[in-house]
Amino acid sequence: MKSAAEAPGWDATLYLKYGDERTRPGRDLVAQVPLADPRLVYDLGCGPGNSTALLAERFPRAEIIGLDSSPDMLTQARRALPAARFEAADLATWRPQRRADLLFSNAVFQWVPNHRHVLAALMQALASGGCLAVQVPDNLAEPAQVLIRDIAEEGAWSKRLAGAEDARQTIAAPQAYYDLLRPFGARIDIWQTIYQHALADAPAIVEWMKATALRPYLALLDAAETQDFLAAYTERIAGAYPPCADGKVLLRFPRLFLVAIRA
Amino acid sequence: MKSAAEAPGWDATLYLKYGDERTRPGRDLVAQVPLADPRLVYDLGCGPGNSTALLAERFPRAEIIGLDSSPDMLTQARRALPAARFEAADLATWRPQRRADLLFSNAVFQWVPNHRHVLAALMQALASGGCLAVQVPDNLAEPAQVLIRDIAEEGAWSKRLAGAEDARQTIAAPQAYYDLLRPFGARIDIWQTIYQHALADAPAIVEWMKATALRPYLALLDAAETQDFLAAYTERIAGAYPPCADGKVLLRFPRLFLVAIRA
Repeated sequence: MKSAAEAPGWDATLYLKYGDERTRPGRDLVAQVPLADPRLVYDLGCGPGNSTALLAERFPRAEIIGLDSSPDMLTQARRALPAARFEAADLATWRPQRRADLLFSNAVFQWVPNHRHVLAALMQALASGGCLAVQVPDNLAEPAQVLIRDIAEEGAWSKRLAGAEDARQTIAAPQAYYDLLRPFGARIDIWQTIYQHALADAPAIVEWMKATALRPYLALLDAAETQDFLAAYTERIAGAYPPCADGKVLLRFPRLFLVAIRA
Repeated sequence: MKSAAEAPGWDATLYLKYGDERTRPGRDLVAQVPLADPRLVYDLGCGPGNSTALLAERFPRAEIIGLDSSPDMLTQARRALPAARFEAADLATWRPQRRADLLFSNAVFQWVPNHRHVLAALMQALASGGCLAVQVPDNLAEPAQVLIRDIAEEGAWSKRLAGAEDARQTIAAPQAYYDLLRPFGARIDIWQTIYQHALADAPAIVEWMKATALRPYLALLDAAETQDFLAAYTERIAGAYPPCADGKVLLRFPRLFLVAIRA
């Protein structure tokens, strides 16, 4: 039997590219931006530059500026993409000084206070025909998130952890974003994608969540408490995500996408 | 103020391309096929050739064969795409005679009886490293569908319409498709996208549904009954899909996507 690597249609680079669950939402967002040749592009909340690299690949002739509030992230981004420019900024108050053609933001606005007000202001700061393209996780009702809040409320740590929940902004229904952006927009496209990430097992879901949603909670716990919290969480995750026939688990992950064209 | 058409990043062709709600799911499916240069591609249930055209654009060097059970559709497809080949086939029993690199199917398998069995058989008919890429509407629980069944059950026509529902196959949970295809697959990627189609008003939703889900029901009614059925449906649709601030309605439309690579 021929191996997959020898098959005619097979491409190892593409396979790797498509196999990377973490960059898929950003690629899906870039793919829906209906601009051919934007001049000025901002990557809002660029982190270590992963999303900026996607923009540079799609728009090689654009001036691309990545913004982030974290100096560490900016250092990493500058190292990864020396050709792009990176600047410190607080998205809650930042506005472009020049009319932008594309304001792009991948998995950031769920952390920005009063994000709906900010999105409306950014929409108005676009050049005519420019594009606001935003993706945010919309998974607060998923078991992996609900179980964190349940465990936080049940333990002796409940008072201390009460504030951790506030960091994450609630994502509204699609129609609310439509009504918010429509007065400034020629076209508003909104959709949700529910990814199903095939992970090795329940502890792999816990590892995934450690990098994101668990962080504000674990930051308030000592080492022994962290161990107890994670043990309880791992047990309940195993119950909420039953294994597939091959032993893997599917992490259901809903995300909201907005692509708006300025009138 | 500059018009949108003069703006630097603006591209009318792209705007039209991205603005077409009906072809968006097919384009989203093609975009996720991780093959660089497949040799033999089948478009299963090609209809008038819209999806076949997407495949020909993405894979210009491939041998592309469109299959459909409707002679009318095949005639339209041949006219639209003279370079491709189109053949009559019943997807319930058809299997490729040569090992295919890509078996592609956009919005068809919801009509194929026992579609899970068929998908597993097609997966086994792929070349090693080949791809099965499938999209099906997963909207039977949406108000636009539930209201059709409600009205069908309530009227004097209920007995006559009881059979109309059977035509459409129930779509299973993502994990069921994962378990079904995984034994033959090197990689299984499953996701759902919930599109939010901004339509003019509630009657526009009715028009949309007339082209698809309403057809088996209306086919069994006379002219007066059709009028009564549509009047009742339009009224309830207006209640279930409240207008946005600009008067438009958002038609929520969930779809399931499967992209599987043969081991």
